[in-house]
Amino acid sequence: MVRIAVDAYGGDHAPHAVIVGALQALATLDDRVHLCLVGDAPAIHEAVAQHTKALGMSSAWRARLTVQHASQVIEADEEPVRAVQQKKDASMVVAAKLVRERKVDAMITAGNTGAFLVAGMLLVGRIRGIERPALAPVVPTLDGTGVLVLDVGANMDASEKQLVQYAQMGTLYRQKVHHMPNPRVGLLNVGTEPTKGNKLTKAVYEQLRQQSDISFVGNVEAKDILQGACDVLICDGFVGNIFLKSSEGVASTVFSALKTEMTQTWWASMAGLVLRKRLRAFRRKFDEQEVAIAPLLGLQGLLLKCHGSSQATTIHNALFRAVNIIEADVLGAMTAMGVTVEGGDKST
Amino acid sequence: MVRIAVDAYGGDHAPHAVIVGALQALATLDDRVHLCLVGDAPAIHEAVAQHTKALGMSSAWRARLTVQHASQVIEADEEPVRAVQQKKDASMVVAAKLVRERKVDAMITAGNTGAFLVAGMLLVGRIRGIERPALAPVVPTLDGTGVLVLDVGANMDASEKQLVQYAQMGTLYRQKVHHMPNPRVGLLNVGTEPTKGNKLTKAVYEQLRQQSDISFVGNVEAKDILQGACDVLICDGFVGNIFLKSSEGVASTVFSALKTEMTQTWWASMAGLVLRKRLRAFRRKFDEQEVAIAPLLGLQGLLLKCHGSSQATTIHNALFRAVNIIEADVLGAMTAMGVTVEGGDKST
Repeated sequence: MVRIAVDAYGGDHAPHAVIVGALQALATLDDRVHLCLVGDAPAIHEAVAQHTKALGMSSAWRARLTVQHASQVIEADEEPVRAVQQKKDASMVVAAKLVRERKVDAMITAGNTGAFLVAGMLLVGRIRGIERPALAPVVPTLDGTGVLVLDVGANMDASEKQLVQYAQMGTLYRQKVHHMPNPRVGLLNVGTEPTKGNKLTKAVYEQLRQQSDISFVGNVEAKDILQGACDVLICDGFVGNIFLKSSEGVASTVFSALKTEMTQTWWASMAGLVLRKRLRAFRRKFDEQEVAIAPLLGLQGLLLKCHGSSQATTIHNALFRAVNIIEADVLGAMTAMGVTVEGGDKST
Repeated sequence: MVRIAVDAYGGDHAPHAVIVGALQALATLDDRVHLCLVGDAPAIHEAVAQHTKALGMSSAWRARLTVQHASQVIEADEEPVRAVQQKKDASMVVAAKLVRERKVDAMITAGNTGAFLVAGMLLVGRIRGIERPALAPVVPTLDGTGVLVLDVGANMDASEKQLVQYAQMGTLYRQKVHHMPNPRVGLLNVGTEPTKGNKLTKAVYEQLRQQSDISFVGNVEAKDILQGACDVLICDGFVGNIFLKSSEGVASTVFSALKTEMTQTWWASMAGLVLRKRLRAFRRKFDEQEVAIAPLLGLQGLLLKCHGSSQATTIHNALFRAVNIIEADVLGAMTAMGVTVEGGDKST
């Protein structure tokens, strides 16, 4: 039985989009999955009753849904550390505590990213031997394989040792979850030569080269990532976040500008109509929603972050992702890795 | 009289694309401009004769063109420091020396970027008081104003003080060259709140806020830059390069994929034909060629870098850009700024 807590009050469209997504997942996932919705209990019960009817769901899944009351909510603009420490009964905090107490295997939230990271570090805690967790979305690539990027914002000033651990965690994740026997690990850098980069990347290049438990393919330039230059991309959280936001920004700007172009003349509108379906399918590859789900790897339990603007579909997809990760026993593999690192540290 | 040296042997399409671009500029720029082509003299003379004929140019401009012989060439893949130190008669080195000796006001090259940066630092030298030069292209924005980004790769590990100087140099440049009285300076960061970022951005935020000679608008997220969130964007060279390459990578991937989509069916091809012209004009805004010209600011003379893949048009445009920068006396303004910084340092 896989047990997952869902922060019903996290995200711009909470609680309804979250609850609908959770119910949809519950209806499609098989009976090994148990969901726990966390937040204002009376309101959740009411919303569940309403949406169950609207969705035309049978009652077979009722035994697999519980509600955990939480009286507070962490807002999107709250200062993360203070919010987590002071709002002890916030839905996100309560959900994280369920993970710590092993009452659930995973928690999912679309709430405040900073608070999510703090809750992960302070309430759930790191795997022994792993210095820092990494936020690790799969960014779409043209070949459809995607690239797992660690880290996109959990740890702004990563050390060499931490970057090496990201490479190891990313390799395990791709092996376990995506069944890639030998994922190619690349280091995000400004050029492909070993001598390129800043102090951090120059130093870590050599260390990555010497790791026997990863397949290091060297430095990777940002412009080559979408072409599928590697399966796991390593960078500190600041640089990873800049990479992710730049890519999202350009893609969304280009698409919205294209849309404008296609309304400028009658002919352009007609052409736009013809292309609309193709463009929409194509755009989905680059859409934020695709990178909207990111596990925080390296903690003693699974925490998944969904984009703040997540709709029901993203929550639904995140629950499927969580089940995959839990069933692949990523946590077990990383715990073993942490023991090895502590036992005989290769990187120092 | 503005005098500009052109490295005829720098870039993937050198020497012909460079020489054609220079000749075109010479034909259109008025008679206050003098060009000096640097490289293998006999070959350059031959190419000039050939292209002059092909371009149907009059001979009035001949008096404004000289050739400076240089027997060596720095290749694209050479190690920069060694190349500049050992190939003393390389076209790029000779051109940089012409700047140092005040025989020309500026030099332009499409050659090895690393060697260009080394030549700038070692041969031309910094303005007194300015710690590090910054490579500063104008990245296109949707509103057409563009954003001057400092630095995109001259200085991988910038200090707080150096970032503050970038803000000052960028402000002067926008004021002098683009006639913006009060350019908005933004700090590239992972969020807009003052507390966001890594150690460097957190520390420099406070310093930028206290500078009275710039208009600091705070942190700017990568996704908002193309929308025109600021006029001058500050970041260290590593992060700036990742930002630039990510943006270029996504834009070129999206456009090439669009092209493929538009050949998939007969209807899509027809629609593509209708949209082709609009898309081409639109693409130009995002094209690498537009950010293909970047001055290296902070040196005792103007050095302009063109993209390695530059065609004649880029060289032509770079020469116009150089004339603008020289006539705006950016060098004089930055020299005065350096004196002020040395006199009473506000940032420490």
